[in-house]
Amino acid sequence: MKTSIHGLHKVFESRIRLGIMSALMVNQKLDFNEFKHLLELTDGNLASHLTALEKHRFIQVKKQFVGKKPNTSYSATDLGRQKFTQHLNTLEALIKKVSQK
Amino acid sequence: MKTSIHGLHKVFESRIRLGIMSALMVNQKLDFNEFKHLLELTDGNLASHLTALEKHRFIQVKKQFVGKKPNTSYSATDLGRQKFTQHLNTLEALIKKVSQK
Repeated sequence: MKTSIHGLHKVFESRIRLGIMSALMVNQKLDFNEFKHLLELTDGNLASHLTALEKHRFIQVKKQFVGKKPNTSYSATDLGRQKFTQHLNTLEALIKKVSQK
Repeated sequence: MKTSIHGLHKVFESRIRLGIMSALMVNQKLDFNEFKHLLELTDGNLASHLTALEKHRFIQVKKQFVGKKPNTSYSATDLGRQKFTQHLNTLEALIKKVSQK
């Protein structure tokens, strides 16, 4: 039984990045506070993982004013959606193999 | 939609550890070369992750002689099976949420 882990993407290994990408797969865009609430995370933790995902162009950042207040929102890029879907499919295959025993 | 990532265990974040534990959930025990073949990994990479899993008592190591040759085999502990099952259940829930969109 060959266990293929090579479809898993290193950048998505962290639980927090799994959470961020999962949330962005079912939400068009989210801002920082929405992420913090959804994933129950601290500022520092969340910020560093958002930066890493942006560096890989898996998410994109949009800065705008909402009324007089600055607002930063994040959305998944097509590349991010495609790579994360592949990651999830590989995880799903791994889980199926394990639960077949 | 709260995304719970807190059921995910940090020790299982790495793809290689995911592969090791998955393989040990469907195999009573495996030796080093069987792991290398199954997961298509190098010695160094595999050894360090096996050590980490052993340190957390998620896997146990058995050293014996097979004929005249020393053989080291690995198996999942009850603790390891329990924690990894919880990790997979959380991943599965995350994947379900993402695919429901």
